[in-house]
Amino acid sequence: MIIVQKYGGTSVADLDRIRNVANRVKATRDAGNQVVVVVSARAGVTNRLVDDAKALLPHPDSREMDMLLSIGEQETIALTAMALHALGVPAVSRTGAQVGIRTDQEFTKARIVQIDGGDIKQQLDDGKVVIVAGFQGVAPSGDVTTLGRGGSDLSAIAIAKAVGADVCQILTDVDGVYTADPRVVKDARKLDEISYDEMLELASLGSKVMQARSVEFAKKHGVVFEVRNSMNNNPGTIVKEEVASMEDVVVRGVAVDKNQTKVVILGLNDQPGTAARIFTALSQANVNVDMIVQNVGRDGVANLTFTVPADDAFKAEKAVENIRDVLGPKLKVMTDRVAKVSVVGIGMRSHSGVAAELFTAFAKAGVNIQLISTSEIKISVAVDVDKADEAMRVAHAAFSL
Amino acid sequence: MIIVQKYGGTSVADLDRIRNVANRVKATRDAGNQVVVVVSARAGVTNRLVDDAKALLPHPDSREMDMLLSIGEQETIALTAMALHALGVPAVSRTGAQVGIRTDQEFTKARIVQIDGGDIKQQLDDGKVVIVAGFQGVAPSGDVTTLGRGGSDLSAIAIAKAVGADVCQILTDVDGVYTADPRVVKDARKLDEISYDEMLELASLGSKVMQARSVEFAKKHGVVFEVRNSMNNNPGTIVKEEVASMEDVVVRGVAVDKNQTKVVILGLNDQPGTAARIFTALSQANVNVDMIVQNVGRDGVANLTFTVPADDAFKAEKAVENIRDVLGPKLKVMTDRVAKVSVVGIGMRSHSGVAAELFTAFAKAGVNIQLISTSEIKISVAVDVDKADEAMRVAHAAFSL
Repeated sequence: MIIVQKYGGTSVADLDRIRNVANRVKATRDAGNQVVVVVSARAGVTNRLVDDAKALLPHPDSREMDMLLSIGEQETIALTAMALHALGVPAVSRTGAQVGIRTDQEFTKARIVQIDGGDIKQQLDDGKVVIVAGFQGVAPSGDVTTLGRGGSDLSAIAIAKAVGADVCQILTDVDGVYTADPRVVKDARKLDEISYDEMLELASLGSKVMQARSVEFAKKHGVVFEVRNSMNNNPGTIVKEEVASMEDVVVRGVAVDKNQTKVVILGLNDQPGTAARIFTALSQANVNVDMIVQNVGRDGVANLTFTVPADDAFKAEKAVENIRDVLGPKLKVMTDRVAKVSVVGIGMRSHSGVAAELFTAFAKAGVNIQLISTSEIKISVAVDVDKADEAMRVAHAAFSL
Repeated sequence: MIIVQKYGGTSVADLDRIRNVANRVKATRDAGNQVVVVVSARAGVTNRLVDDAKALLPHPDSREMDMLLSIGEQETIALTAMALHALGVPAVSRTGAQVGIRTDQEFTKARIVQIDGGDIKQQLDDGKVVIVAGFQGVAPSGDVTTLGRGGSDLSAIAIAKAVGADVCQILTDVDGVYTADPRVVKDARKLDEISYDEMLELASLGSKVMQARSVEFAKKHGVVFEVRNSMNNNPGTIVKEEVASMEDVVVRGVAVDKNQTKVVILGLNDQPGTAARIFTALSQANVNVDMIVQNVGRDGVANLTFTVPADDAFKAEKAVENIRDVLGPKLKVMTDRVAKVSVVGIGMRSHSGVAAELFTAFAKAGVNIQLISTSEIKISVAVDVDKADEAMRVAHAAFSL
């Protein structure tokens, strides 16, 4: 079998951990597999580089930023190759450019345009382990690009696709995807499998196992992958296209994102196009808006509430204040930190009453709901940050996860 | 004018020093010049990477070593570009591969085969400062290579040649080339100019200002360069083809290399080919032999003495022991640390009596001479390490430097 294994920054943080990775790769190869390893920069390296850059210049040029950041992964591939050599395993390192990860010209957040895999297959057939730098590619200009947050996962999945891998393993510091955060919900359970769509919702909900874009890429290209622990040999969670039996489970998991800010806009002119102007302004300011609720109040004024990532709250407030002229003289903007608790499951499509059940459970537990938003396979509610853990436990219990 | 400036590792050791480099580059550009900057890895970075590699594997694969080491310079070019941006100076970084520094496939000690300069001229004409990673190139395989010790100087001189630079400045932590080490000889004097050949002898004698190969490259391609201090604006030492007036100075400078080992081989069979076998064995062991003296003794046995860099002494001894069979039953090998003191000057070609003058001065000062070797423009003597500084002072005084 051809197996792609991706190891993140904590798994290669120091030389001992790199040796651990080498031992795991050797074991996988000794079992008769051809192995491609995708690695991130050592934990802390990227942050140190970013700090240096920002000390020189608050907003460094993005091309130079990628020239700088890409060295983190280049360091890891060379050291990992050496650690494998030390075990007597033939291995060769490859940069993103060398395995033909072609991207657009959008430095620091490049998108993969095409990937041919370079000579990976040939090296595998020669008996070598191939170690590829995650997170990076090459632009049409020939400059190195980086893929942005979660980029190494994306590299691994793209390479799995390019070489026709049988298995793609995302090795991380947890055993897989859980029904809820096991640090908060004691009886949270590891899932054996999950659909792309459920994983996508969980990813976008801050469950932090993986970035949504990697899951989207896997779904689009039909790459089945497994999230598993780099420190043990427990089976992980398989992420794949949904199968009929998956729908028997109404709720697959519960996720919480405590890093949200609720923006409340009061006293808006109640005219067609007002909301459009606001969301255009927010979009131009690069603010990702999540849950949205609009109420029309008395006296021809409307209220609008939405949530944004807490880091974007200031930008969001400023973007709205900037168009105060068109929004009306009574405009008032308030912000408040909130937590978003979500239940996710493709079974919801065919089962009604999930929302009612959830809201009833929250009411019984005294958890006040501030905002609600739903999709086909997800219900999200914004609650007080203080109540977030309690809400997750209540939801987890309500659906007998 | 097109000016190439090369800054070494100590000149870019931390962010403040990188800012200092940026300020100097800006001043050079503001004076109406087009500037290409060649930088090394930050001081300490390369050593740290080598330590990591050797902790994994005593003899790391050289291709992976270059994959690893080349990140040092890549870090510096990006940070230097950002420091220039912070001053409002348009600047762009380039890897060795991007400016077409094509080398052979000899990883960790690659030789430059060709250099086209990439788009440097175009970037300069667009008003930009171009910052190039020293020490690295690209092999025919497309892999990154490093040029070995002193590689960044070589990069700078090669780039100066490729872009037809008017001036090539090697910025370092001393004011230039001195008549002797100013830390040892109080009245040592900075030279305003020196010929390639004199500089070559000084470089190979461990004066440590530059590696011989960079000077050789400059001589071969007629690149005039200046060694000057990165921390002040003092004029440095111009290194160029000799002109007639240079011969008026008999001795240009005195250098000492304390890092030598004398290898004495006693009891050799006095047969034709014995020395050839020894030096073949040493060459195969990659030991650079310097001074050589052979005496034929009594009873058909010969003695042979030579010096090697102290780091190679063990290798040298082993290489000789390995061919004990062919060297004779009475073979005895002894080693001893020595210092090599040399006087250099192209004026020696037309002036006799320099050796006599030097040996007389040493005799008066009680400095015992162990070995002597001479070239057209150099006289070297091996002395006790304890006597090295004294010998340098005596020689410096003898020739009224």
